[in-house]
Amino acid sequence: MCGIFGIIGHPEASNLAYLGLHALQHRGQESAGIVSSDGNTLRFHREMGLVADIFTAPALEKLLGSAAIGHVRYSTAGGSQLKNAQPLCVEYAGGQMSVAHNGNLVNAQELRQTLVADGAIFQSDADTEIIIHLIARSRQSTFEKKVTEALSKVKGAYSLLFLTQNQLVAVRDPYGFRPMVLGRLRNSYVLASETTALDLIEAEFIREIEAGEMVVIDEHGLRTSQPFPPTRQGRCIFEQVYFAKPDSVLFGTSVYEARKELGRQLAHEQPAPGADLVIAVPDSGVPAAIGFSQVSGIPYDVGLIRSHYVGRTFIEPQQSIRHFGVKLKLSAVRQVLKGKRVVVVDDSIVRGTTSRKIVKMLKAAGAVEVHLRISSPPTVWPCYYGIDTPSRQELIASNHTTEEIARYVTADTLGYLSLEGLGTAVGDRERNTFCTACFSGKYLTGDLNPEAIEASTQHTAPGITLLSGPEELPGKQLLA
Amino acid sequence: MCGIFGIIGHPEASNLAYLGLHALQHRGQESAGIVSSDGNTLRFHREMGLVADIFTAPALEKLLGSAAIGHVRYSTAGGSQLKNAQPLCVEYAGGQMSVAHNGNLVNAQELRQTLVADGAIFQSDADTEIIIHLIARSRQSTFEKKVTEALSKVKGAYSLLFLTQNQLVAVRDPYGFRPMVLGRLRNSYVLASETTALDLIEAEFIREIEAGEMVVIDEHGLRTSQPFPPTRQGRCIFEQVYFAKPDSVLFGTSVYEARKELGRQLAHEQPAPGADLVIAVPDSGVPAAIGFSQVSGIPYDVGLIRSHYVGRTFIEPQQSIRHFGVKLKLSAVRQVLKGKRVVVVDDSIVRGTTSRKIVKMLKAAGAVEVHLRISSPPTVWPCYYGIDTPSRQELIASNHTTEEIARYVTADTLGYLSLEGLGTAVGDRERNTFCTACFSGKYLTGDLNPEAIEASTQHTAPGITLLSGPEELPGKQLLA
Amino acid sequence: MCGIFGIIGHPEASNLAYLGLHALQHRGQESAGIVSSDGNTLRFHREMGLVADIFTAPALEKLLGSAAIGHVRYSTAGGSQLKNAQPLCVEYAGGQMSVAHNGNLVNAQELRQTLVADGAIFQSDADTEIIIHLIARSRQSTFEKKVTEALSKVKGAYSLLFLTQNQLVAVRDPYGFRPMVLGRLRNSYVLASETTALDLIEAEFIREIEAGEMVVIDEHGLRTSQPFPPTRQGRCIFEQVYFAKPDSVLFGTSVYEARKELGRQLAHEQPAPGADLVIAVPDSGVPAAIGFSQVSGIPYDVGLIRSHYVGRTFIEPQQSIRHFGVKLKLSAVRQVLKGKRVVVVDDSIVRGTTSRKIVKMLKAAGAVEVHLRISSPPTVWPCYYGIDTPSRQELIASNHTTEEIARYVTADTLGYLSLEGLGTAVGDRERNTFCTACFSGKYLTGDLNPEAIEASTQHTAPGITLLSGPEELPGKQLLA
Amino acid sequence: MCGIFGIIGHPEASNLAYLGLHALQHRGQESAGIVSSDGNTLRFHREMGLVADIFTAPALEKLLGSAAIGHVRYSTAGGSQLKNAQPLCVEYAGGQMSVAHNGNLVNAQELRQTLVADGAIFQSDADTEIIIHLIARSRQSTFEKKVTEALSKVKGAYSLLFLTQNQLVAVRDPYGFRPMVLGRLRNSYVLASETTALDLIEAEFIREIEAGEMVVIDEHGLRTSQPFPPTRQGRCIFEQVYFAKPDSVLFGTSVYEARKELGRQLAHEQPAPGADLVIAVPDSGVPAAIGFSQVSGIPYDVGLIRSHYVGRTFIEPQQSIRHFGVKLKLSAVRQVLKGKRVVVVDDSIVRGTTSRKIVKMLKAAGAVEVHLRISSPPTVWPCYYGIDTPSRQELIASNHTTEEIARYVTADTLGYLSLEGLGTAVGDRERNTFCTACFSGKYLTGDLNPEAIEASTQHTAPGITLLSGPEELPGKQLLA
Repeated sequence: MCGIFGIIGHPEASNLAYLGLHALQHRGQESAGIVSSDGNTLRFHREMGLVADIFTAPALEKLLGSAAIGHVRYSTAGGSQLKNAQPLCVEYAGGQMSVAHNGNLVNAQELRQTLVADGAIFQSDADTEIIIHLIARSRQSTFEKKVTEALSKVKGAYSLLFLTQNQLVAVRDPYGFRPMVLGRLRNSYVLASETTALDLIEAEFIREIEAGEMVVIDEHGLRTSQPFPPTRQGRCIFEQVYFAKPDSVLFGTSVYEARKELGRQLAHEQPAPGADLVIAVPDSGVPAAIGFSQVSGIPYDVGLIRSHYVGRTFIEPQQSIRHFGVKLKLSAVRQVLKGKRVVVVDDSIVRGTTSRKIVKMLKAAGAVEVHLRISSPPTVWPCYYGIDTPSRQELIASNHTTEEIARYVTADTLGYLSLEGLGTAVGDRERNTFCTACFSGKYLTGDLNPEAIEASTQHTAPGITLLSGPEELPGKQLLA
Repeated sequence: MCGIFGIIGHPEASNLAYLGLHALQHRGQESAGIVSSDGNTLRFHREMGLVADIFTAPALEKLLGSAAIGHVRYSTAGGSQLKNAQPLCVEYAGGQMSVAHNGNLVNAQELRQTLVADGAIFQSDADTEIIIHLIARSRQSTFEKKVTEALSKVKGAYSLLFLTQNQLVAVRDPYGFRPMVLGRLRNSYVLASETTALDLIEAEFIREIEAGEMVVIDEHGLRTSQPFPPTRQGRCIFEQVYFAKPDSVLFGTSVYEARKELGRQLAHEQPAPGADLVIAVPDSGVPAAIGFSQVSGIPYDVGLIRSHYVGRTFIEPQQSIRHFGVKLKLSAVRQVLKGKRVVVVDDSIVRGTTSRKIVKMLKAAGAVEVHLRISSPPTVWPCYYGIDTPSRQELIASNHTTEEIARYVTADTLGYLSLEGLGTAVGDRERNTFCTACFSGKYLTGDLNPEAIEASTQHTAPGITLLSGPEELPGKQLLA
Repeated sequence: MCGIFGIIGHPEASNLAYLGLHALQHRGQESAGIVSSDGNTLRFHREMGLVADIFTAPALEKLLGSAAIGHVRYSTAGGSQLKNAQPLCVEYAGGQMSVAHNGNLVNAQELRQTLVADGAIFQSDADTEIIIHLIARSRQSTFEKKVTEALSKVKGAYSLLFLTQNQLVAVRDPYGFRPMVLGRLRNSYVLASETTALDLIEAEFIREIEAGEMVVIDEHGLRTSQPFPPTRQGRCIFEQVYFAKPDSVLFGTSVYEARKELGRQLAHEQPAPGADLVIAVPDSGVPAAIGFSQVSGIPYDVGLIRSHYVGRTFIEPQQSIRHFGVKLKLSAVRQVLKGKRVVVVDDSIVRGTTSRKIVKMLKAAGAVEVHLRISSPPTVWPCYYGIDTPSRQELIASNHTTEEIARYVTADTLGYLSLEGLGTAVGDRERNTFCTACFSGKYLTGDLNPEAIEASTQHTAPGITLLSGPEELPGKQLLA
Repeated sequence: MCGIFGIIGHPEASNLAYLGLHALQHRGQESAGIVSSDGNTLRFHREMGLVADIFTAPALEKLLGSAAIGHVRYSTAGGSQLKNAQPLCVEYAGGQMSVAHNGNLVNAQELRQTLVADGAIFQSDADTEIIIHLIARSRQSTFEKKVTEALSKVKGAYSLLFLTQNQLVAVRDPYGFRPMVLGRLRNSYVLASETTALDLIEAEFIREIEAGEMVVIDEHGLRTSQPFPPTRQGRCIFEQVYFAKPDSVLFGTSVYEARKELGRQLAHEQPAPGADLVIAVPDSGVPAAIGFSQVSGIPYDVGLIRSHYVGRTFIEPQQSIRHFGVKLKLSAVRQVLKGKRVVVVDDSIVRGTTSRKIVKMLKAAGAVEVHLRISSPPTVWPCYYGIDTPSRQELIASNHTTEEIARYVTADTLGYLSLEGLGTAVGDRERNTFCTACFSGKYLTGDLNPEAIEASTQHTAPGITLLSGPEELPGKQLLA
């Protein structure tokens, strides 16, 4: 997953991009980058690591100009790689352009093959390089038309920010998988994956960029268009469930309130009568746990404490001391749990290994019953639209019943939210505006060949491996 | 503030010390160190920074032996300094010894002057070097007796771990200001500032080290004594209010439950009738907020989200963009707060500047009323026993009434817990076993001259300044 | 300037590439990289800095396979840039390829424009990316034919090593500007810029790669061809004068012996009768100084000592203390120089500032006369074939007579070697096999437009600037 | 070995100390430090590594004041240790003091035992800490008198610089083992191990500090005394042979000229009739080789090239590729050596392993005969006065005849300079003013017990080992 940020028309564009990326750090902790334009020249700085570590004062000072775009990137399967860091920045027939991309293309492999056959070279594995090639090869007259032509060839998820010497262009794919919002800070326009970035820099929220919309901002102001054929919407429901920051407003809804509603719905569907208290797996499970408590009347309490010091290169001692993973991050509060029948709310189960450790930790701390409640349906299908889920083989719900999973994670009971309940909670009972593929298998982009896609999205250039980057990076890890 | 950990009798002593220090990281983020003994030789490694960054696999491998002590240190006023990192490790008449110290002496200045006049040299500002000198100069026959003689001369707060080639000695001052617990892991004994360190390594909690107790562990096993004249107890109440980790059991009480009780008591004393919801300043305010909610019946909710990515060297952009401090760490959840009358619970107010920013942030996010509730009494007096409070001049409650503070922080109402309520909540209504000096001004160590103490605790060696260390370090900052 | 190294058929290919690059470190200190192939996959590691710092044991271990190429790069005008580090490694229609390039193209700008107009994108400023695009766009059937077609379009200097999954291809341009040699180490073939790299790894020297030769090595062995139309040779004479390592054999001649011969010839042409001793500007001036001494009979001695600790990021103190540049690197030996008439031999004068400082240093140390002798002709013209000379405006000999230069550098006399003498010394009196453009202005590649070339070689992509790299890097600096 | 530098009375004291230490970097590459005084406060910065890496601009800016002392330290046996870095900086009865020490005490062990028995604690292994303790315990009235009293108790080699808040004190032991010179820069006084440091900062050389002299510089100016009983001089002859920088003037003699004279004398004593050329082991063997050439008439030439890029953390590849040590540093010039009978001049043989590799390298490059000539007598005895020689067991000349050594190093002939010749060459035929213990076994400090001394100088605190430092550091390595 990734986060993107753009600003144009502000004398401190790079500084604000830096703050904006910090606010979006939860969307990607592997690498970060900023490109600035002073009207003539694009300058960029990108590195592996966290925003706060990468951008020193001298680095920011060199990123001159009143326009900038930035990107934070999540560590995908296959290792962290500097060559995949964004924004990409190239010279092409139209001058200079840079791009920051959130999302994943599903026809990357075939586009890449076509381009390669036509003489293109690829220096990274990123889908984004495909988009750049398509733009560079377009014979259209303007940058906007080139972008439109290029994007008409790609299928999949993309929220994109382009910066040229004098234009900032924002595009969201016709389904609107990944979020993007527009704001204003005095005389400048701001674009960001989530509203939390607007809030931090005290920019005013104007509106969401619509699915399929292209916005161009330059010296003539802002103009908008809908260059793609209309289609149904497919906003990623997992952003609501887990990925977005709770203080953001996403797809018109408060993320925090949506998650609390998931918990309320979950309490209706999967009650835990007789339980003594409801706790959350912090921090992502907290809103749903509070919602569950409100509906069920079972008191909410804190049974697990999250450490603030995990996520860096923690060396696990060898030999007989092992498996400290989850324990280094979470500690159980004995006095809260002792002798209690506990409902523990989490947002999802991926492989099941983390859930198993948590349940065991709760029981070791004295809980007499552990009722695991998940504020989303079973994660059965991989996401091909930008979230780094493992293959079906590793997704425990792909191959096991809820009963089997409960047994594996050693929970007394296990309850998932239903797909209907999920839709209801997010205000789209029919689920016409959301993509629920990870739960339902309904991939919106049509005739998918999962095997091919997996190959295409994970190993587009299977043979070239940059070894410079650290192997493991800190941060929010979906694949728990 | 500092955290200490010791273990003897385990083949992976250093690895376990490393894990133990990680669990105690909240007690100090400036520097960390471990000393090990293999029976003949003490080896040490200490650096500025976080436990997870300092101890690489090769570093740990070199810390041979089945006994180890470790230390994490908090950044005190005056800058981070490697020379003050612990454990200290020296050669003296009795061989080799090392020491890890949590606490602060109140007669440091006069002891230092006496020692210096007698030919001692000091290479650091730490009180701990005084203790080492006193031991080295003792003419007593055994290490225990030397330690006893040395400590009979010092006044103040100390929980100490000593490691010699073949003994681990633990001492707690007669008042018991700073915590220390004893545990067992198979055939080894473990000592730690808090039980959370025992829990992480799955050691069994045996008991608290008593105030004034000395425990000696060596090949002959464990023996205990009470070498100091008895006195009243003075366990630091601020450990319960703020400092300790919520999953720890401190002074026989669950920290989490104690804090929740503070919130309950606060709700009785300082109700906020008509409020719509109770929120916490995360993470330390959460238990009290939940307690407040339980008693008041006002629903608990999450109005402030804490970022996981703050605390490193975040460069604030210069020029017109400023004052992002609190905003980089906390974001307000608009949809929760909008139009609401909000009770916000925090553990303490030090200078008032952070509270002011938080209240303003809540109002900017739409809260129509903000009722600030503090789960402890006003912090009026500096702590001379190990917590890094600023001078009286900077403590807002030293010089202002509650009304003035409320006005300054722009809260609609402000309510502190009473001293009586605090005592009641922690199970000592008379406050006979706690030190409450920061709230009451009753310093237990007698005839204190605050001016002299401030000089002694902050600038024992005023002229020598090591410039190697980073100026600012991440971490839990009391002095908000 | 750059250095390249390749090996195929050895189980420790990457380790040997690492050693080989270390031996070639004098050819470039800005960045270094290695690509390996295990038959299926190319893996690469490249960074800014010195070979010994970049390649740690874990980094080398990951560079699997029995074939590898490597590159060291010199800091060119415009700042160090990671994006320009080599070898480049791409996916293209034929699979994967990587390339390491020593040299400079003179038609880079027009090729780049053509490619860009045809839809190519450029991510770096390096000429090398042009070559890769040309190969990727070739419709030829084999890699060799693609390379041949691509190179038939470029003009300028190139010694190239290509590594694909299963082939190592070496090419030298028809003029043979930059050196390249072939060696053998047991069953493996080795290619390197200079023989010193063969010597270090104890590989046997087979022969020089000829000008215009292409060598392909794969599982079928080694085959050679001459795919380009024949032309006159143009081996860079400045390699002999200054750039190559003295223990190398270059273009069939010992570099050390050639430089000594330059000194001998210089002594004939520019004697310094009455001088007391001959000293060198170390280290590059030593062989010529010894030659000068041998012919003139004036004793050779050491008047300047070179520090081993310069070249890193030495911060020059500000304020009144300044201009320590040359003094930090060289110290004068007073007792050798005092009262003496000194001949000081250097290889070239570029801007004149360093020579001026050296002459002044010698006089401050007591030399009563300083006779500066240069073992090459005046450097009047910029090199467009890979050596980073400044523009004509900065070349002191472009705009000043020898007398004016002598006066500027404060030498009592100044004598340059003649062009004829240079030719004679390197065994090519007619200078038919060497490029002497920097001295003579005779650019072999024909109708040059110096202005266009300067633009093309220095700022191919004028607008895109990567700001990640350090601004200044250590090393051998031609532009003294 | 170590280097020291001091300055008082200059507004840029720290900057000049930094430059001075850079000039003395050849005397120690393990760690460096500077202490400054602004009249009230001593500030220090010390780290492992090279001067140019340790002192950044911000670090230097914080070292306020017009007086400063600095120290560079050599890596002794037992590993690099930050705790041993100097200058030491302490608070004691007289206020603050710091000290930089070059040399080694021979009664360190007994002094340390006495101090420890009297209650002193030691935090490092350095002799220097003993001196500080002795000063701190002195009951004398002034700092000078305290220093005098303290030093009257120590035996061995010391050139010392002390900086207090307002005094700079320089002392050289009565034998004058280690050098120290006095200079002037405008209104400031400068002290340094060697004149090369004065030259770099353009300070005027006044005179050498005499053996047994104490110089005190403060606001009242400079005053000198001879506080110790007179004794014979014992200037370290190995400084002349190898250690000092050739451009320095040492003990009144030019180091370069002295070394050349060693070569001349060597040519008389150990001629190599019939040899074709004389080469040096660079850089230290160069002056003697030139001298040898001058006397013998055999031409001097360059047969070995020294790399500028060795000395950092070079990882030698594992497995079958090994033993690149000397080859990474030196390359042979084939065309110079091929078919030649070569005299190779080096300054000393320690273990013999390096000499062996060099001889083999010369023969592999084609030399038909190699005649090794050493410009000093056999190194038979360990140095207890500050040079880090290995124990007798490892000194090849302790246990082998010259013939055996010749055979081991595979030289055709091997010739050492005689002790008489050495004395003659340095202008003291009777060797009354030099210490020649490493060659002669005549230790000037009397009744030495080598076993005890070894223990005392190498492992004063045998049990305490700091593990923070890098295990191996770059630099001039005596123990070849």
